[in-house]
Amino acid sequence: MKTIIYDQTMDLDKILKRNEDVRDDIRNAVLEIIKGVKTDGDAALLYYTKALDHCELTHLQVTEEEIQEAFDSVSESLLEIIREAAGNIRSFHEKQLETTWTYEPKPGVVLGQHITPIERVGLYVPGGKATYPSTVLMDSIPALVAGVQSLVMVTPPGKDGKVNPAILAAAKIAGVHEIYKIGGAQAIAALAYGTETIKPVNKIVGPGNIYVATAKKEVFGKVDIDMIAGPSEVLIIADKNANPVYAAADLLSQAEHDEMAMPIFVTTSEDLAKQVIEKVYRQINEDLGRKEIAKKSMDDFGFVFIVKDLDEAFELSNKIAPEHLELLIENPMDSLEKVRNAGAIFMGAYTPEPLGDYFAGPNHTLPTSGTAKFSSPLGVYDFIKKSSILSYDQNSLKNVYEKIAAFARSEGLDAHAKAVERRFEN
Amino acid sequence: MKTIIYDQTMDLDKILKRNEDVRDDIRNAVLEIIKGVKTDGDAALLYYTKALDHCELTHLQVTEEEIQEAFDSVSESLLEIIREAAGNIRSFHEKQLETTWTYEPKPGVVLGQHITPIERVGLYVPGGKATYPSTVLMDSIPALVAGVQSLVMVTPPGKDGKVNPAILAAAKIAGVHEIYKIGGAQAIAALAYGTETIKPVNKIVGPGNIYVATAKKEVFGKVDIDMIAGPSEVLIIADKNANPVYAAADLLSQAEHDEMAMPIFVTTSEDLAKQVIEKVYRQINEDLGRKEIAKKSMDDFGFVFIVKDLDEAFELSNKIAPEHLELLIENPMDSLEKVRNAGAIFMGAYTPEPLGDYFAGPNHTLPTSGTAKFSSPLGVYDFIKKSSILSYDQNSLKNVYEKIAAFARSEGLDAHAKAVERRFEN
Repeated sequence: MKTIIYDQTMDLDKILKRNEDVRDDIRNAVLEIIKGVKTDGDAALLYYTKALDHCELTHLQVTEEEIQEAFDSVSESLLEIIREAAGNIRSFHEKQLETTWTYEPKPGVVLGQHITPIERVGLYVPGGKATYPSTVLMDSIPALVAGVQSLVMVTPPGKDGKVNPAILAAAKIAGVHEIYKIGGAQAIAALAYGTETIKPVNKIVGPGNIYVATAKKEVFGKVDIDMIAGPSEVLIIADKNANPVYAAADLLSQAEHDEMAMPIFVTTSEDLAKQVIEKVYRQINEDLGRKEIAKKSMDDFGFVFIVKDLDEAFELSNKIAPEHLELLIENPMDSLEKVRNAGAIFMGAYTPEPLGDYFAGPNHTLPTSGTAKFSSPLGVYDFIKKSSILSYDQNSLKNVYEKIAAFARSEGLDAHAKAVERRFEN
Repeated sequence: MKTIIYDQTMDLDKILKRNEDVRDDIRNAVLEIIKGVKTDGDAALLYYTKALDHCELTHLQVTEEEIQEAFDSVSESLLEIIREAAGNIRSFHEKQLETTWTYEPKPGVVLGQHITPIERVGLYVPGGKATYPSTVLMDSIPALVAGVQSLVMVTPPGKDGKVNPAILAAAKIAGVHEIYKIGGAQAIAALAYGTETIKPVNKIVGPGNIYVATAKKEVFGKVDIDMIAGPSEVLIIADKNANPVYAAADLLSQAEHDEMAMPIFVTTSEDLAKQVIEKVYRQINEDLGRKEIAKKSMDDFGFVFIVKDLDEAFELSNKIAPEHLELLIENPMDSLEKVRNAGAIFMGAYTPEPLGDYFAGPNHTLPTSGTAKFSSPLGVYDFIKKSSILSYDQNSLKNVYEKIAAFARSEGLDAHAKAVERRFEN
């Protein structure tokens, strides 16, 4: 880990090696795949699955029998934990439900906002080493709470043509409607444009590798997408009384995700900082399952910032806009108003990040790479849309139509003016 | 206008000539401009403004004196109308404000959602023939209601280096914080990446031509953007008692926007359809200000659909997902639940679209080209973001930590399991 004395003029994006550029070779490969799927439909999906996933499929949709078989292969104790987590996730997201409202600003005038769910949504679930049933729950439950009628999951098959059983079990528990064995840019193209087997969706959510992310950006506009996910990050703000063992363990839970995951520790105490660094490397060497990944992440992307007080810690954190923010300080809830940019805020010594990753209820699909400056956790609000409601009676329009006509003519829009005037011509 | 007997198997995207593809030559030109602005900053802005807007600027920011001069040149009666419209827009959007909430699902557990405004937002306002002060109000007021601290407007200058005075007056009335005289892809690049003069923003909103739209899509990810706007559309559902003069006038208020604007009339009555078409062409020929544009739009993109009943009318409308939906039917509010996809819904004979374009309060920046299937009118919700709040006390975590550890290990994430376990080791 690199230790840095914070100074408010430093270029944090450079220090953190954040980079948003899309590589041209990747983009060209993705455009080729999208074109293939638009032209050849299912045949292209089978072709790319053979070429890229090394798997020869005969059918794309996962059958009820395959789902049941996978479900039966998962231990009852894990199923019970998944069910309890799903219940917590559902309860939290139900708090985000919005309903249609109208009001009467004046007699004869009704204005409002009509809420409807998005009809058909695609959910990308990565395969390989980053196959997480918890992500299936986190991405599907808000859509289902919102009222999405068709929730379609896609995930790449293994070479044996099978999908990870825990993924299928989580999808069954959540209530996903359709599942297809395709991944990569070809899956995103299929969801956006449709094929013989897969009907097109209105929105695509879920994390994926750089090909998936690039494909999502390309199809944006034809469909909506969620924010493009980068490497995972945690930023811990700790005062001098924080427990260095907990802090080190939480930094490592971030670091084990992948070699580009970013664990950041911010503290007012140089002494604590030294202890945390020492504990991090000790814990890595004790018995950590993914020790190589965690060590590389810590070495290359682990940062310790020394700040002069907590206000400066929050200033730094707001500039970085971390995906996960842990507050290992006294009375953390009192500092809520100081947080301006963060995906999720974990308050105090007994709210470690894995609690939010798996169980508590709030979403674990969060804005990464500083995008918390303008985006939010995945939520029910991502799966609904609004329509404005306007209703004026004759008298109400009569009172204002000349103003509307004058405003329209000032913009040179004569037919707009006439549309209101013709109502009162005689 | 083309008359079509609706049939639910028809390919509506093909009939309506909707097309979302980005042209490669435009994309390459835009990438070149973005690269130029990233490398050369202000110098690139001045260069492109000279090359593309034929205007040699000495400074980019509009001064207080220029704003005041523009303001003084607008008639007091128009200023008064703009102020009243701004007040209505502000009142409506204040209803969309959300506040931070927390709740206690169990003793010792607090969950919630923290609401914060996006800090710095860019607002693109087109120049030339599509210069609309009403759009300045509609795009800036929701941002200011949300609490955006820095709202930055960009708009291309005329050859004389000046900006349309009504635009500046509207910006002053709304309360925009900074204004720069730049347009096109170079303005989008400056907002996304910053230059010596212009600090980068977190989100860019507002309509623009194909270069602006393409640039917005390219910078998406570095900043957030609103939905990419296509040609404007209205769809009117009319029963046999609807007034054909009003319907024709409303279709024309859409058609005059530009030659690709799309006026769609849907009715159960073939007789009414004929009357409306007759009135449309009669009104065009009477004395319409933008008669050539309106006629071309009607000829090329005007559609009349005959349906067998109102249910079929709503089915068709939901498939098209129009930007503006007018219900010229009896008791339109009773049909609200039938509307699944629409930007704004105008209820009854005295709620014509221009009322919403200028005055009533709901936003006129609405999803076009079928994107109402997954997006919403511009609103306060576009200028805030959410952070999840989680807080568990020691006992609450103790009750569940073994389940979290088991779930984490099932995903192969050992350090996640250890992070909770270390809290209860002794």
